[in-house]
Amino acid sequence: MKQLFFRSDHFLPTFNNVGLFFIFGVQYTRALILSLNPMPSKKKSAAKVVSKKASSKKKDYAKLALALHKKLHGKLEVVSKVKLQSRDDWSTAYTPGVGAVSSHVAKHPKEARLYTTKRNTVAVISDGSAVLGLGNLGALGALPVMEGKAAIFKEMADIDAFPIVLNTQDTEEIIKTIKHIALGFGGINLEDFSAPRCFEIEERLKAELDMPIMHDDQHGTAIVVLAGLINAVKVVKKELSKVRVVIVGSGAAGAAIARLLIKAGVEDVVVTDSVGIIYEGRTGLSGYKKELARVTNTKRLKGEALNAIKGADVLVGVSGPGTITKPHIEEMSTDPIVFALANPVPEIKPEDAKLAGAAVVATGRSDYANQVNNSLAFPGIFRGALDNGVSKITDEMKLSAAKKLASLVKKPTADEIIPSVMTAGLVKAGASVVK
Amino acid sequence: MKQLFFRSDHFLPTFNNVGLFFIFGVQYTRALILSLNPMPSKKKSAAKVVSKKASSKKKDYAKLALALHKKLHGKLEVVSKVKLQSRDDWSTAYTPGVGAVSSHVAKHPKEARLYTTKRNTVAVISDGSAVLGLGNLGALGALPVMEGKAAIFKEMADIDAFPIVLNTQDTEEIIKTIKHIALGFGGINLEDFSAPRCFEIEERLKAELDMPIMHDDQHGTAIVVLAGLINAVKVVKKELSKVRVVIVGSGAAGAAIARLLIKAGVEDVVVTDSVGIIYEGRTGLSGYKKELARVTNTKRLKGEALNAIKGADVLVGVSGPGTITKPHIEEMSTDPIVFALANPVPEIKPEDAKLAGAAVVATGRSDYANQVNNSLAFPGIFRGALDNGVSKITDEMKLSAAKKLASLVKKPTADEIIPSVMTAGLVKAGASVVK
Repeated sequence: MKQLFFRSDHFLPTFNNVGLFFIFGVQYTRALILSLNPMPSKKKSAAKVVSKKASSKKKDYAKLALALHKKLHGKLEVVSKVKLQSRDDWSTAYTPGVGAVSSHVAKHPKEARLYTTKRNTVAVISDGSAVLGLGNLGALGALPVMEGKAAIFKEMADIDAFPIVLNTQDTEEIIKTIKHIALGFGGINLEDFSAPRCFEIEERLKAELDMPIMHDDQHGTAIVVLAGLINAVKVVKKELSKVRVVIVGSGAAGAAIARLLIKAGVEDVVVTDSVGIIYEGRTGLSGYKKELARVTNTKRLKGEALNAIKGADVLVGVSGPGTITKPHIEEMSTDPIVFALANPVPEIKPEDAKLAGAAVVATGRSDYANQVNNSLAFPGIFRGALDNGVSKITDEMKLSAAKKLASLVKKPTADEIIPSVMTAGLVKAGASVVK
Repeated sequence: MKQLFFRSDHFLPTFNNVGLFFIFGVQYTRALILSLNPMPSKKKSAAKVVSKKASSKKKDYAKLALALHKKLHGKLEVVSKVKLQSRDDWSTAYTPGVGAVSSHVAKHPKEARLYTTKRNTVAVISDGSAVLGLGNLGALGALPVMEGKAAIFKEMADIDAFPIVLNTQDTEEIIKTIKHIALGFGGINLEDFSAPRCFEIEERLKAELDMPIMHDDQHGTAIVVLAGLINAVKVVKKELSKVRVVIVGSGAAGAAIARLLIKAGVEDVVVTDSVGIIYEGRTGLSGYKKELARVTNTKRLKGEALNAIKGADVLVGVSGPGTITKPHIEEMSTDPIVFALANPVPEIKPEDAKLAGAAVVATGRSDYANQVNNSLAFPGIFRGALDNGVSKITDEMKLSAAKKLASLVKKPTADEIIPSVMTAGLVKAGASVVK
């Protein structure tokens, strides 16, 4: 069972607080914001006014999405690059000509990248065990999301991604099935697999298949969090290696964020779960939490989360609404940085976090400033992997991708630590470090 | 191991005899033939002349195909039906809106047909164990052909087909893998699985999955052969139920043709393999051949193939070059009908079959008259199944499809018993009987 409500690639307004959109204007909609509403001079009080105004314009995306999907019967289309109009078309794209291509590729498997769709395809695979923040919806429930992901792959990075939803939630069956179907693809994007199964599935596939594989809920999120944190510490004039980071939530994202931050040189990372601080020797720790305990929490903090949050510089929530409170933030160090990434309802409302003293706040939502959005990372990562024939997405690549993403924000401010998905050259930048 | 060289959906000229194209002009290229060369008055002698002339124009489709595939990096593209340009686009196609679609589909699985790509997708699946007539090329070797098939699905029937090549040739693993990935698709087209594994794979999947599944090498071929035979017997003024049909070759196609002809009312069907006539009680018969023996050969013929061919009305070759000879045809009944379907080199050259007395000759090649081409059947069959929510493709549907295909040839002649893939309304006609 997935214990988190967290999803970092959610993309917009959502069910409440749409008015706040006008306060913490997201970069790519800034023009729109300005055209709709002059930037308020006194942000907080204006928020309430605008909030009321805007609520009348709030869109019901659930209703719109149901209507759109029903109309389109799904979001993807598989089209032929060749027209089959003349005899020559058929004889070249299909038999007899295609026989020569099949024989050639069978004899020279590495040239499948040249002669087949393997060159540019990614399988977007899910078992539906943790769909968005909605829980275990199964294979069919996952399909609309996987289609959406495939659409993002195409629209952002011109990658031909196809959704494969698995009607099994048995770890071994999942691994075997993916291994059996992988060869025709150029890469595998794992999506919405619940923790802790997701760790084994990804690790095993990476070890047993010779192609780029990434569980986006883990690494896409971690890359974007690190990118944001690189800029956030600049804003508050601290050093990345010196800050204490407390991660509230130890699921797929929490574990991956912890590991990547440590790789990035953050020395003091503490992860908490529903029981409290994770530390080496805590009774009842499961396998992957034991491993987390080994590499985090060098100061051997114990007890409730607050014990770690006291004096911390950065608080990253990847759990659910309400797990971060004002008192938590008030106990943090000077100029606290708060990433409240649960979606659609964050651990704490950004306005409350600010009131409690947070200097920089990020969420998973696009109606606030600083959206941690996986779509900033995965299209570029896979674009680079496919173009450069990269068979493993390494930690070094993830670090470089995070740094590159961070560098796209020329002058980080409290309201702009993360680039938007509309940033020109975004995918190219991400792709450039995967080689 | 596949024992046959046969493939019925080959589509064109090929490696020799291109000149003969001008004699047995294929319907859809008739205009072209006439424009290039006036119809020769004395066919056979002209053939040789034209053959020499045409050979200078012969195209090297192997070379053309390699160049095309290298240039395109594969033949398919996965495109998004929705553009992701505005905030609303993202919020409706992806999160948060898509969450409502996922929840809805999870709760109402039958409505996946309305809200997702399941509505219009077919997986084109192969393990590469019998790629065209090229043998066991494995998963990557199969990919260019499966891409081609997917392209035909789209171009002919607007179906979004995606190639899945399996990197296993273990029957149980294949069945499990397909079962695990099937739910997201609207149908399964099995392709280029070798016999006898193909029978079990298809039967098991049909029994264990609630969706249209068809092994095209079996049933696509059988449907088109039956369609051709319905018209061929008209040409020679015989009755379908009364003819003796001898099928040379007992692989995927041979077995399926025998079964469908029997369903169509042909009472005297005999199948032969490399040993000779298949009859009940023959020692060493494998499982599926035992079953074939039980339903065919009601006269209990034994011995070499010629024993059955003597006095036969129809000879269907689904084996390899050279297995049908002039003496075979000379021993047949009056106005013999010969389907020599091995590809690219037929069991006997059509001109030789005619010299031996054949009244009607069909092949798998498009450079002769009467091409038995699977593309006449499968796009329409799946179009109908998807549109009408059909979960099983039954023998009755196959029979109806064959009759419908036959009916598209208004006035059957020796040189026109089968419609061409360019026939207007072809797919619609096929689709109309699958409901």
